[in-house]
Amino acid sequence: MTTEQTLYKTFKSKIQEVADVNHAIAVLNWDQETYLPQKGAKIRAQQISTLAGIAHTLSIAPEIGDLLNKLGKSETLSDWDRINVKESLREYEKKQKYSKEFVVKLSAVTSECYQAWMKARSANDFQIFRPSLEKMVAIKREECELLGYEEHPYDALLDQYEPGAKTSELNVLFSDVHSQLVDFVKEISEQEQVKDSWMYQAFNKDSQWKFGLELLEQMGYDFKAGRQDISEHPFTTSFGSSDVRVTTRINPNNLYEMIWSCIHEGGHALYEQGLKSEDYGLPTGMYLSLGIHESQSRLWENNVGRSLPYWQVNYPRLQQLFSEQLKQVSLEDFYKSVNIVKPSLIRTNADELTYHFHIMIRFEIEKALIEGKITVADIPTIWNEKYKEYLNLDVPSDKQGCLQDIHWSHGSFGYFPTYSLGSFYAAQFYHQAVKDIDSLEKHIENGNMQPLLDWLRKNIHQYGRFFNADELCQHITGESLSFKYFMNYAKTKYKYIYNI
Amino acid sequence: MTTEQTLYKTFKSKIQEVADVNHAIAVLNWDQETYLPQKGAKIRAQQISTLAGIAHTLSIAPEIGDLLNKLGKSETLSDWDRINVKESLREYEKKQKYSKEFVVKLSAVTSECYQAWMKARSANDFQIFRPSLEKMVAIKREECELLGYEEHPYDALLDQYEPGAKTSELNVLFSDVHSQLVDFVKEISEQEQVKDSWMYQAFNKDSQWKFGLELLEQMGYDFKAGRQDISEHPFTTSFGSSDVRVTTRINPNNLYEMIWSCIHEGGHALYEQGLKSEDYGLPTGMYLSLGIHESQSRLWENNVGRSLPYWQVNYPRLQQLFSEQLKQVSLEDFYKSVNIVKPSLIRTNADELTYHFHIMIRFEIEKALIEGKITVADIPTIWNEKYKEYLNLDVPSDKQGCLQDIHWSHGSFGYFPTYSLGSFYAAQFYHQAVKDIDSLEKHIENGNMQPLLDWLRKNIHQYGRFFNADELCQHITGESLSFKYFMNYAKTKYKYIYNI
Repeated sequence: MTTEQTLYKTFKSKIQEVADVNHAIAVLNWDQETYLPQKGAKIRAQQISTLAGIAHTLSIAPEIGDLLNKLGKSETLSDWDRINVKESLREYEKKQKYSKEFVVKLSAVTSECYQAWMKARSANDFQIFRPSLEKMVAIKREECELLGYEEHPYDALLDQYEPGAKTSELNVLFSDVHSQLVDFVKEISEQEQVKDSWMYQAFNKDSQWKFGLELLEQMGYDFKAGRQDISEHPFTTSFGSSDVRVTTRINPNNLYEMIWSCIHEGGHALYEQGLKSEDYGLPTGMYLSLGIHESQSRLWENNVGRSLPYWQVNYPRLQQLFSEQLKQVSLEDFYKSVNIVKPSLIRTNADELTYHFHIMIRFEIEKALIEGKITVADIPTIWNEKYKEYLNLDVPSDKQGCLQDIHWSHGSFGYFPTYSLGSFYAAQFYHQAVKDIDSLEKHIENGNMQPLLDWLRKNIHQYGRFFNADELCQHITGESLSFKYFMNYAKTKYKYIYNI
Repeated sequence: MTTEQTLYKTFKSKIQEVADVNHAIAVLNWDQETYLPQKGAKIRAQQISTLAGIAHTLSIAPEIGDLLNKLGKSETLSDWDRINVKESLREYEKKQKYSKEFVVKLSAVTSECYQAWMKARSANDFQIFRPSLEKMVAIKREECELLGYEEHPYDALLDQYEPGAKTSELNVLFSDVHSQLVDFVKEISEQEQVKDSWMYQAFNKDSQWKFGLELLEQMGYDFKAGRQDISEHPFTTSFGSSDVRVTTRINPNNLYEMIWSCIHEGGHALYEQGLKSEDYGLPTGMYLSLGIHESQSRLWENNVGRSLPYWQVNYPRLQQLFSEQLKQVSLEDFYKSVNIVKPSLIRTNADELTYHFHIMIRFEIEKALIEGKITVADIPTIWNEKYKEYLNLDVPSDKQGCLQDIHWSHGSFGYFPTYSLGSFYAAQFYHQAVKDIDSLEKHIENGNMQPLLDWLRKNIHQYGRFFNADELCQHITGESLSFKYFMNYAKTKYKYIYNI
C-alpha cells in the first residue's frame, strides 16, 4: 500500500468507529420507540446521552483532522475517495466551530425549551413557551454567525439539513407555491367534494398489518435486511444498509394511516437499503440530505402510492381483506378518496397540496425571526394571519396553531423546508423516471415495482453524498430543482379528480 | 462537599459512563437474539466489538486508577462507598494485569477455537477441535500465572465468575456429591419409573405464551421494568434494574421447555430488578457472582417451581388452558412428572440431581487440564469413562459427549462450577427462608409469592456486592455453603416421589 492508501484506510476505520457508535445510538432509540418498558425510559436517556458524547469526542479527535488535512492535499485519490475526504473535512471543520461553552448552552436552552413547549401545548398557551423560545431564537442567530454564511444567515441553518441549500432558492420556490398553488387549491375547493366516508369504519388490525407488509414487500423492501414494528409515530431508522427498520401505526378506525405510513417509511427505507454497504460510515455511504431523503418517501407515497395504476393492482387485494367495508366502493371512488384536497389546521394531517402552505408559513416565520424582522412575541398573530391568507382558515387556538410542532423546541430551525423540497424533488425525479423507463405505469399497474426501484438505485441511492443535491438533480434531470414539475403533476392529477 | 465526596462523585460518574456503554452493548445483544434481521448480523458484530473496545478503554483509564487509589486511602467513607471503591479497585487492578499483547492473543485463540468447535461438532470429531483447544488451555494456564493465586492456579479462573471461590472448597463440595448423590441417584433409578407421556403432545403456542406471562407476573416480575420476548436460547439481560428483560422459547410439542425457562429466567430477572437503582454501575448495584445469580434462578425453578404447593395453585389454571391434553392427569402425577430423575448425556437436558454429575465431570477435567495432569488429547477418553462411572451411560459420540458445550471454545474455564454452586446456595437459602417466613409454603400454595420475594430482596438483592458470596451466605444462614442442605432437600423430595 502507498502511504496515502494507508492514511485513507486509517481514516476509514476511525470514521467507521464513529458510525458504529452512532448506529448503536440508533438501536437504543429504535428500542425506546418500540419495546422499551415504561420504567426503563430514564436510564435509557442517560445511556443515549453518554454514547452521543462518546461519538462526538471521537468525531472531533485531532487525529481525524490531521488525517483529513493530509489526505485533502493528495492528488492521487480516486474521485470517490476524494469526495469522502472533502465531505468529512467539511463536517469536521463545522464541528470544530462549536465551542464547548456553546454546546453546553445550546443543550441547556433546548432542554428548557422542550419542557416549556410541552407545558405550553398542554395549557394551550403560547405565552408559556415564549421566553424559552426567545432564548432559542437568540442562540440560533448566534449559531448562524458562528457557522458563517455567504448570502443569508438562515443559509447556515438550512445547511445543517440540506447542505448547500440557499434561502434565495427557497424564496423562488415558495414564491411559485404562492403564485400558482394557492389559486389552484382555491379552484379545487370550489368543486364538488370527493367522498371518503368509508375511510372511517372498523378495520381489523391484523389484516391491516398484513396488508402493510404486502405493500412493503411489493415495493422491494428487503425483509432480510430490515423489519417492521409498531410505534406511536412511524419512523425509519438505519443501523447500516443491511439493517434498515421501519415502524408503522395502526388505527383500527382509519385504514389510511397505516397504508401511507407504510409506503412513506418504505420509501425512506429503500433509500437506506440502497446505500453502498462497502461505504458504511463514509459520506458516499450516507443519505445525501433530508430533502433527498424525503424525495424518496414522497415519490413512493404520492407519485406512486396515490396513483391510479398503483391501486389498480392493490385495490382488489384490499377489497378482499375488507370485503364488508369496501364492497360498495369502486376503484375510481377509492382512488379519488386517497387524493382529497382540503385545507386543514394541522400540518401532519395535510393533503399533498396544502401541505406546502404549512411549510411556507413556517419558512417565512423562521426566516423573519432569524433576520430579526419579527420577534417571538409576534408569532401567534402572524401565524394566524398567514393561515387565513393561504388556507382561508381561522386558527381557534395556539395548540392547533403555532404550538403544534415539536421542531422549534428542539432548535430545528431550517428543517421544515426540507419537507417541501422532498416533494418537489420527487415530482421532478418521477417525471424523469417516466421518461427513462419504458411503460413505467404499466409495470406499476402489474405490481412490478422493480424497474422503478432499479432506476432509483442507479440514479440516486448508490451515490450517497458523491454529488450534492443540486448536482444530483442536474445529473438525473439535466436541470436544477424547479417547482414546475410538481405543479404540472398536481394540475394533471387534480384536474382529473376534481373535474376541472 | 468535602474533597473526598467530590472525588467519589467523579469516580461514580466515570464508572457509570462505563456502565452506560456496557448496557448499550447489552441492548445490541438483546436485539441480536430477538429481532435482528438475517443480513444485519455482520455489521452488528462489528458495532458490538467497537463498543466493547470503548468500554474497555474507558474502564482502564489512568484517571479512574488515580481516583480509586486516592479514595482507597480514605478513612471517612461510608461502609457502602468503601466497598465500592475496594471492589472497583480490585477490578481495575485485575484489568491492568492484562497486557495488550495478551488480550490480542486471547482474542485470536478464542475466535479460532470457536470456529474449530463449530466444525468439530458438526463433523462429530473431537480431533478437529483438539489443536485449537490445546492453544486455549495453554493460554488459560498462562492467564492463571498472570492473574496470580494463593492456593491453586484454577482459583484464578474461578475468581472471574465467582470472586473468592477456591478449588479446595469445590473439592469438598464435589466429594460430597460423589459420596452422597451418586448412590442416591442409583437408588432412584432402581425404583418404578414416573410417567410423563403427556408432556409430549401438541400445546397451542399462544396459550403457552400466556401461561408463561402469568407465572412471571405471579412471581412478582415487574413488567413495567422489563418484558419477555422469544429467542432461540432463553436468557435474561439487564440494561439497569429498571429495564430487565427475559426471553423464552416455546416448543409446540413440549410444554415443559417454556414453563421452566420462564421460571428460571424469571428468578434471574427478579434478582436484577431488585438491585439498587441508585447504585447503577457501582459494585453494590451489581449481581454478586454467577453462583449467586444462579442461586436465584434455581431457587425459583426447583425449590419453588418443582414443588407441590406451587402446582397446587398453578395446575388448575394449566389444566384449564390445556383441558384436552391434561384432563386425565392428576395434580399428583403432574407434580411427579416435573421431577423425573433420569441420567442422560446432555447437560442442558438434565434433571436437577444428575445435573451435578455433568458439572462434576467438567470441573474434574478442567482442574486436571490446568494442573497439567492430563492433556487435551485425553479428554474424550476421560469424559466417557466418567460418564460411565457417575451416570452409568455409554457416550456414543463426541457430539453427545465432550463436544456438547460451547464454553471451552469461548475460553470459559471455571464457569461450569457456578451452576452447581447456584443449586447448592439455593437449597441453603431456601431452607433458611422456610425458617424465617411464617407458613411460606402456605403462601405459595395460595399463589402469594410476595413474602418470598421480599425475603430475597431484603437478604440478597439489595446488597449487590456489598458482601462477598461467603459473607452473604454466613450473613443469611449463619454458616458457609454446605452441601447438606441440597442433599436433605433432594432426599426429602425424591424419597416421596419415588416411594423410597
